[in-house]
Amino acid sequence: MTQKQIEFYLDFSSPYAYIASGIIDEFAEKHDAAVIWRPFVLGAVFKDEGNKPLLEYPKKGAYAKCDIPRCAQFYKVPYHHPTLFPVSTISGLRAHYGIELEHGADAAKIFAKALYAAYFIHNRNISDKDIVLQIGAEVGYDSKWLDQQLQSAPAKDRLRAITDDAMNRGVFGAPYFFINGEPFWGVDRLPMMAHYLKKGTWSDA
Amino acid sequence: MTQKQIEFYLDFSSPYAYIASGIIDEFAEKHDAAVIWRPFVLGAVFKDEGNKPLLEYPKKGAYAKCDIPRCAQFYKVPYHHPTLFPVSTISGLRAHYGIELEHGADAAKIFAKALYAAYFIHNRNISDKDIVLQIGAEVGYDSKWLDQQLQSAPAKDRLRAITDDAMNRGVFGAPYFFINGEPFWGVDRLPMMAHYLKKGTWSDA
Repeated sequence: MTQKQIEFYLDFSSPYAYIASGIIDEFAEKHDAAVIWRPFVLGAVFKDEGNKPLLEYPKKGAYAKCDIPRCAQFYKVPYHHPTLFPVSTISGLRAHYGIELEHGADAAKIFAKALYAAYFIHNRNISDKDIVLQIGAEVGYDSKWLDQQLQSAPAKDRLRAITDDAMNRGVFGAPYFFINGEPFWGVDRLPMMAHYLKKGTWSDA
Repeated sequence: MTQKQIEFYLDFSSPYAYIASGIIDEFAEKHDAAVIWRPFVLGAVFKDEGNKPLLEYPKKGAYAKCDIPRCAQFYKVPYHHPTLFPVSTISGLRAHYGIELEHGADAAKIFAKALYAAYFIHNRNISDKDIVLQIGAEVGYDSKWLDQQLQSAPAKDRLRAITDDAMNRGVFGAPYFFINGEPFWGVDRLPMMAHYLKKGTWSDA
């Protein structure tokens, strides 16, 4: 039997995707599924959709400021709201794919988690390429090598391809998940995802 | 001990608020809470926020079309997507408050549920005042009386006051709930609402 797959679309500046990142592996294991992490450029997707970042909506933004920390508490994920928010994550995203291309998805996931912790726990400015390289060094990558990797055409191309693919598949926010093509938006959809992983359908819900 | 209260903000054209309407009473009973229904003009709130109706976003709209029926199945609420969607609900909203002013909140809730069933199960056009009056008649109100009520200044004023109040309290979508002032947006927040009703805090989550 093929293992079920959860595709997990995230951006390193999305608090809700960060919260999801803290629980999705355990969730997947519980449901006998694998998780494929797909970092992408959320800003490009917003632009394409005619949507705006959360905090640019006055009421929805105020709600998010109250909701994000309590969600983190609810899901038992450590959270500190970053001083600079939101930030550009291009360097981190390219570094992620630079690592993935050379060392594989598991290695890239370790780096992605380190990047998330740096931003959403330790308040480090991950829009700064030097900080990204430092974080890379902390998980074992030579900074000069990583700097070359994140500027390489294959890393850039891979990020662009994943982002284009996200748009073509209808992704409009983060976290966004696919299970066998079925789309789920938001960390609060885990109960429905659990149902779908178990039953594979809605009609007998 | 005072019973806990869930304030439930809804519009009669919101599918997610309709789904919430089908489960919120049982949910509240289970958690020893009362529900106060507060129908309001969602369109006015969207306009104020610089937001657009769901289906005007190409990707989010496509997602909603897929998500609404499966949510209804997941929550075991009957659902048929209306041919005309979204529609103006002003007549229904005013009729709701016309009934509430004369017969109280419980009577108005019965009417609200009938209106929801008419729209989201039986595909009736609730933007048509005559249909609203018919639905009123089906739950026991004289059509001439209800017609006068829904055009009366007190009903209009009450709807305006509830809508203004919603905006002032930060409501930007539907369903929207308050429990002791704590805001919750979306039917998928019921697990967090359950936690909050039980614990009254997030810090020990």
